[in-house]
Amino acid sequence: MKTKMVYTGIRVTDLEKSIQFYTKVLGMEIVDRSTVEAANGKVVDLRTSPDGPYLELNYYEKGSDYDTPYFPGEGLDHLAFRVDDLGKAADEASEAGHPVVLEVRGKTSRWIYIKDPDGNYIELME
Amino acid sequence: MKTKMVYTGIRVTDLEKSIQFYTKVLGMEIVDRSTVEAANGKVVDLRTSPDGPYLELNYYEKGSDYDTPYFPGEGLDHLAFRVDDLGKAADEASEAGHPVVLEVRGKTSRWIYIKDPDGNYIELME
Repeated sequence: MKTKMVYTGIRVTDLEKSIQFYTKVLGMEIVDRSTVEAANGKVVDLRTSPDGPYLELNYYEKGSDYDTPYFPGEGLDHLAFRVDDLGKAADEASEAGHPVVLEVRGKTSRWIYIKDPDGNYIELME
Repeated sequence: MKTKMVYTGIRVTDLEKSIQFYTKVLGMEIVDRSTVEAANGKVVDLRTSPDGPYLELNYYEKGSDYDTPYFPGEGLDHLAFRVDDLGKAADEASEAGHPVVLEVRGKTSRWIYIKDPDGNYIELME
């Protein structure tokens, strides 16, 4: 399938500490903040330059299904790729042995997840 | 410090399987392949578009110090940021409570690692 890699999402356990680190130490700028009701979590997107890749900090509230025990090395939450046709992309991934493991519907959008050979979540969005 | 985010490095346990997934399923193109003697490993860099962010697959040979047991979620090997002055960046990070934990010297270059608040490795390069 034809995709465009969009961002890298890492999981963080203390959103403010991570924002301090990525903005103060590494000089990134916050470009977006949002809450994700479906995951009971918060998301902060940062960049170092307007044309550069961005980094998404994913924080899950206590009680969220995704607030699993955190161990060092668990930082990679997901990688995100944009596609033109989500249904077609899902079919192609499934045929290649990577079926959709999760589908999330927001108010105006939906996105799906497949897994790479090591079990990392790969988000596909339209 | 002023930085430019360069790539996301994920650790993979089967380089060929991961190359197949990222090139055939997600349509990425390989832009570089190299071996890293200091880590006894191999590196493959991929992109979805010439101006897009890139993804680095990091594979460690059996016997490498970095060939530690792999568990799901351990995919994030490191995030990489470019800086103008590596010595100054190391000082600034250290003053902010994030000292250099590893320094690697190649034939013509050197790079350092610090850790973010969750223990993820952050590479700084010139």
